[in-house]
Amino acid sequence: MIKVKIIGAGGYGGVGLVELLLNHPETEIVALVAQTETGRRMDELYPHLQGFCDLPILPPDDPAAAVSADVVFFATPDGVAMQQAESVLAQGAKVIDYSGDFRFQNAATYAEYARRIGKDPVHKSPDLLAQAVYGLPELYRDRLTPDTRLVGNTGCFAIGCILGLAPAAEANLVELDHLICDCKSGVSGAGKKPQPGFHYPARYEQMNAYRLQGHQHVMEVECALQQTAGTDVCLTFTPQVVPACRGILSSLYGRLRPGIDRNAVWDAYHQFHDDNYFVRIYDRSAAIGTQHVRGSNFCNLIVDVDERTRTLRVIAHIDNLVKGQAGNALQNMNLICGLPETTGLDRPGQYP
Amino acid sequence: MIKVKIIGAGGYGGVGLVELLLNHPETEIVALVAQTETGRRMDELYPHLQGFCDLPILPPDDPAAAVSADVVFFATPDGVAMQQAESVLAQGAKVIDYSGDFRFQNAATYAEYARRIGKDPVHKSPDLLAQAVYGLPELYRDRLTPDTRLVGNTGCFAIGCILGLAPAAEANLVELDHLICDCKSGVSGAGKKPQPGFHYPARYEQMNAYRLQGHQHVMEVECALQQTAGTDVCLTFTPQVVPACRGILSSLYGRLRPGIDRNAVWDAYHQFHDDNYFVRIYDRSAAIGTQHVRGSNFCNLIVDVDERTRTLRVIAHIDNLVKGQAGNALQNMNLICGLPETTGLDRPGQYP
Amino acid sequence: MIKVKIIGAGGYGGVGLVELLLNHPETEIVALVAQTETGRRMDELYPHLQGFCDLPILPPDDPAAAVSADVVFFATPDGVAMQQAESVLAQGAKVIDYSGDFRFQNAATYAEYARRIGKDPVHKSPDLLAQAVYGLPELYRDRLTPDTRLVGNTGCFAIGCILGLAPAAEANLVELDHLICDCKSGVSGAGKKPQPGFHYPARYEQMNAYRLQGHQHVMEVECALQQTAGTDVCLTFTPQVVPACRGILSSLYGRLRPGIDRNAVWDAYHQFHDDNYFVRIYDRSAAIGTQHVRGSNFCNLIVDVDERTRTLRVIAHIDNLVKGQAGNALQNMNLICGLPETTGLDRPGQYP
Amino acid sequence: MIKVKIIGAGGYGGVGLVELLLNHPETEIVALVAQTETGRRMDELYPHLQGFCDLPILPPDDPAAAVSADVVFFATPDGVAMQQAESVLAQGAKVIDYSGDFRFQNAATYAEYARRIGKDPVHKSPDLLAQAVYGLPELYRDRLTPDTRLVGNTGCFAIGCILGLAPAAEANLVELDHLICDCKSGVSGAGKKPQPGFHYPARYEQMNAYRLQGHQHVMEVECALQQTAGTDVCLTFTPQVVPACRGILSSLYGRLRPGIDRNAVWDAYHQFHDDNYFVRIYDRSAAIGTQHVRGSNFCNLIVDVDERTRTLRVIAHIDNLVKGQAGNALQNMNLICGLPETTGLDRPGQYP
Repeated sequence: MIKVKIIGAGGYGGVGLVELLLNHPETEIVALVAQTETGRRMDELYPHLQGFCDLPILPPDDPAAAVSADVVFFATPDGVAMQQAESVLAQGAKVIDYSGDFRFQNAATYAEYARRIGKDPVHKSPDLLAQAVYGLPELYRDRLTPDTRLVGNTGCFAIGCILGLAPAAEANLVELDHLICDCKSGVSGAGKKPQPGFHYPARYEQMNAYRLQGHQHVMEVECALQQTAGTDVCLTFTPQVVPACRGILSSLYGRLRPGIDRNAVWDAYHQFHDDNYFVRIYDRSAAIGTQHVRGSNFCNLIVDVDERTRTLRVIAHIDNLVKGQAGNALQNMNLICGLPETTGLDRPGQYP
Repeated sequence: MIKVKIIGAGGYGGVGLVELLLNHPETEIVALVAQTETGRRMDELYPHLQGFCDLPILPPDDPAAAVSADVVFFATPDGVAMQQAESVLAQGAKVIDYSGDFRFQNAATYAEYARRIGKDPVHKSPDLLAQAVYGLPELYRDRLTPDTRLVGNTGCFAIGCILGLAPAAEANLVELDHLICDCKSGVSGAGKKPQPGFHYPARYEQMNAYRLQGHQHVMEVECALQQTAGTDVCLTFTPQVVPACRGILSSLYGRLRPGIDRNAVWDAYHQFHDDNYFVRIYDRSAAIGTQHVRGSNFCNLIVDVDERTRTLRVIAHIDNLVKGQAGNALQNMNLICGLPETTGLDRPGQYP
Repeated sequence: MIKVKIIGAGGYGGVGLVELLLNHPETEIVALVAQTETGRRMDELYPHLQGFCDLPILPPDDPAAAVSADVVFFATPDGVAMQQAESVLAQGAKVIDYSGDFRFQNAATYAEYARRIGKDPVHKSPDLLAQAVYGLPELYRDRLTPDTRLVGNTGCFAIGCILGLAPAAEANLVELDHLICDCKSGVSGAGKKPQPGFHYPARYEQMNAYRLQGHQHVMEVECALQQTAGTDVCLTFTPQVVPACRGILSSLYGRLRPGIDRNAVWDAYHQFHDDNYFVRIYDRSAAIGTQHVRGSNFCNLIVDVDERTRTLRVIAHIDNLVKGQAGNALQNMNLICGLPETTGLDRPGQYP
Repeated sequence: MIKVKIIGAGGYGGVGLVELLLNHPETEIVALVAQTETGRRMDELYPHLQGFCDLPILPPDDPAAAVSADVVFFATPDGVAMQQAESVLAQGAKVIDYSGDFRFQNAATYAEYARRIGKDPVHKSPDLLAQAVYGLPELYRDRLTPDTRLVGNTGCFAIGCILGLAPAAEANLVELDHLICDCKSGVSGAGKKPQPGFHYPARYEQMNAYRLQGHQHVMEVECALQQTAGTDVCLTFTPQVVPACRGILSSLYGRLRPGIDRNAVWDAYHQFHDDNYFVRIYDRSAAIGTQHVRGSNFCNLIVDVDERTRTLRVIAHIDNLVKGQAGNALQNMNLICGLPETTGLDRPGQYP
């Protein structure tokens, strides 16, 4: 059994991982650690887990929190993993981090990313960056191997954008200097902490765009697409929140290059994704929405060409808490632990 | 008092107009007419109106439905007004139509529109088209005068797109051959009739794009912007539905022309809209969403420039049933009846 | 014009009153006062009010907050009005308080109330209690006259319970020692402040009961019914929250006394309420719900007798922020200012 | 492997069962049958099942629909199973019916039930009633054995009412001639078919009571409690719908008998339910709601005594589509197939 420890276990990223691990045949949770709500049991924080997980939330300095583990997940905000990963790795555990700390492979790229979003550009563990792998199995499966020890799990908005645009980048289908990513998220993407904008009366019947500049997920999309395309990529990203709990619907647009037609697009997407179990491709006649990936690790893509306007349009659907977070992290864990990628993840959600 | 008759009174477009007329100091409802639910009183169909509107829904052939009126609103699907408007006009009434029947000023343009959306391209009353005015006061106020007798009220999605992009078209701010309109609507935009996709369990937690080709509101946006710009316009339009009842959030994108900067954009938008009472302009720091126009006739615009990507981005917010339908129609009525444009409309919604 | 000042203006109780006053022909808001968010304009806190109310939120010690007023509304928590009302009254203003401070007419009753809900039983202004009137126009209209200077506005849950059971109490229809009030509220009843249980992801799809003992609205219902019946009343009250913003649906049950039948019940309810403009009575065939009073000052009652089980069942529907709070308060103001009770309140909500 | 056939597979009751069976280690679905949507694959109707269930919906007269099965579930409306069960049983299969057809053990009781709800009182297969077992494992586990061949699965509202009141009935805690069951359901309880009252715009922000007389679940609750108590039971039942998809919150009230106190109640509930794995008992301090049983087969009970009013109050929480329907049906199947009761059901839902 793979011994798993979760740092930052009390938030949605933690509870989502616990739910998945309860259904995973090869793992055992050995410790739940957090800074807040310490001393309470997980099933007190999340009563639906009563009978399934009665582990306490341990403070970081509790001796029991130092129990050895094979994999440590950091379900923590930016800045935590970059300070703690070194010692965890030294103890022989692998690290999978949910934050932006290990999504870039060198200090200069990290610094640019941090500057764009208004954070300190100096990484706290720059020596670890070279061994970190960007945690998106559909693109980097060959780097996510049993030799991998450190993974920067992909951001929730970034998942849909990258899976939806990488085939176009690889096959040179569109002008890559002017992509549009218009992304709508459910509220759970903002986490567990109550805030005025997510108070039920202020959120029902409310759709809004926010952080129109400096969103933390833009640069990882540009980097992933650049690596895929081998050329520069520039995208305009609009995060939005709508009155739903789960789900991200991303509308992705690029101007078709001359000579590219619907068939070329269709072929490129199938070629890119046909081996990606968790990606399903549809044409524009499909009557699907975010409800159809809810609770599962799937990413559904509607791939469309508007021939009148010469535009590629891809609609990407994920559950932000599964493929957008804990599910994708577990998929990464499976790969770096030598398990089949789909272990513990191969199931549909509940409908409706 | 202006005598008002509503054809198609039983749907959301009808009840929304009745609510507004109850608050309008210069109007009196003389008849409610519809094909279905005839014989029932309006306050039976809509119990919140008990004590406020007990008029019956009359079938079209009821003698009482022939009562003379000063203004007849057609809150009806495509194809109704083009068959009935002529006789109504002949009786001396003015006509305001919610549908696409009178949004284009000649038969050729109508035919192109109809072909694009898969309808019969032959207009039933082509002779009326020349006198029809496109019912968007913010652009065509000078044509919406007491001489006007026939108005084609703007489509709900089109309102936000046009108000949000017309200043850019007029001031030549962006490349007009590749605009993107990514529009998210609440469910009430689909009307009152139950359908599988709008059944509560199938709609909560559901975001989806639909009708990716051939949406009926695209061409009127292109036409309005073309007239404003004096050049061709081509846009990609993505209608989406999210789990809200009211509201349309439209993200509008265009590639900035060389030399255009944030100040030029800001000035152009203010110049265009500063006399438009129902349009309010914000920069990207504004914490606003569709809830803040809910129940009112306002259109709020966040006007933003992404200088890194050289993109104009406008976020337009309306209530689809007020500024997107009945409120805009009443604003048109005020103008063609010689009343102040804001009569009966000058109030905020209720929050939260 | 009646000069109105609002203490505690920044919360839902304040903004709801501002919205109503904007539509009231005889009032003028002279000051908005609060402890928090001071210095910000009302339309900054509530962007839907832009163009309608740009008054600043004044701190209590701001000289401008001392402007004289004819009526001062306390939209504040328990304990505020009982400390400030005396000086406000001394300045010649009338006081309408939203809290529990002035809902009981003597110190002993207040003390019992306070003990039940775990508060300090000593009232801070006991001398004022004798002149305070319980602010429920449908029962105490004869005491809400221009001579009245101090009103304790009815609690949101209490409104539906009292209006729904008072006819039964007056006509001695049911056993009054074992009433059941099962009440479901929308989330706005909990106010504007974000809390874990009202965070959107924790609230959508969530129905729950809470505070099963010691709810602050129980005793005022018992007192009002006791006064109506002339005998003791004892009721079990279950407050619940469901995923809606506005509305309270109250199911009220009492065991029918021998000999009471459906007709006796029906007659008693009509006799009691037929002069109450804002109360509408329906039988059990009515297809109505909270949506049909949403945004309005109406209370709709379904009055039903289950003859098999010998049970009176009344279903009461209100909007908790209108008839349950600001609307009822304004109705009280109209009465104590000598205006028609319905002034500024006589309109339906918007649907859907 | 147990071969399972589902009649009426296309509705929520069918898809919920398919989801659970996909996770059940001892079953195999051999046929999906329905009257409507025949010829389409299950994963066309329910795209979230793509890759998990591509079986076609067969019309009843399709030869493939006659494939032999060990268990046949009727996820059908009233009247279907009573006509088809006999031949299915004759082929050697066991039958589990979701409807009211087999919830009563003799023709006279069935006739009374049918009369109360306005249906034909003549049962079509009266000879089968004696062998039918009422499908509520927590009360009738001893009758749900491998010898059982026919099960009438408990109604969704009835589950919470019975589990919440049976301990009181058994231990003689309350007056059984005047129970109150005030029950709030999510919309999915009404099934998949679009209807005006469940159209999203008509349902968001809508709470309403309906069918105040003659609801089909009342009599099975009375019968189950009567059998438990050994005396007559009479209850008033109020079904309500609130804007949620899943969940039933039931407030259950009874007047305490003299001498019964909080401890006696607490002990009786624990004694009754401590061996019922899917029932969890809480006191009134528990911060739980329907979200905490969502997606699972658990029934959570808050057991409370209001000593001031001498009232027993139980708040029962279930997911109407799991413990209220498919999950309970599968629990019955486990028992009558000799499997551990919890097989395939022993997991929490997803939160939030």
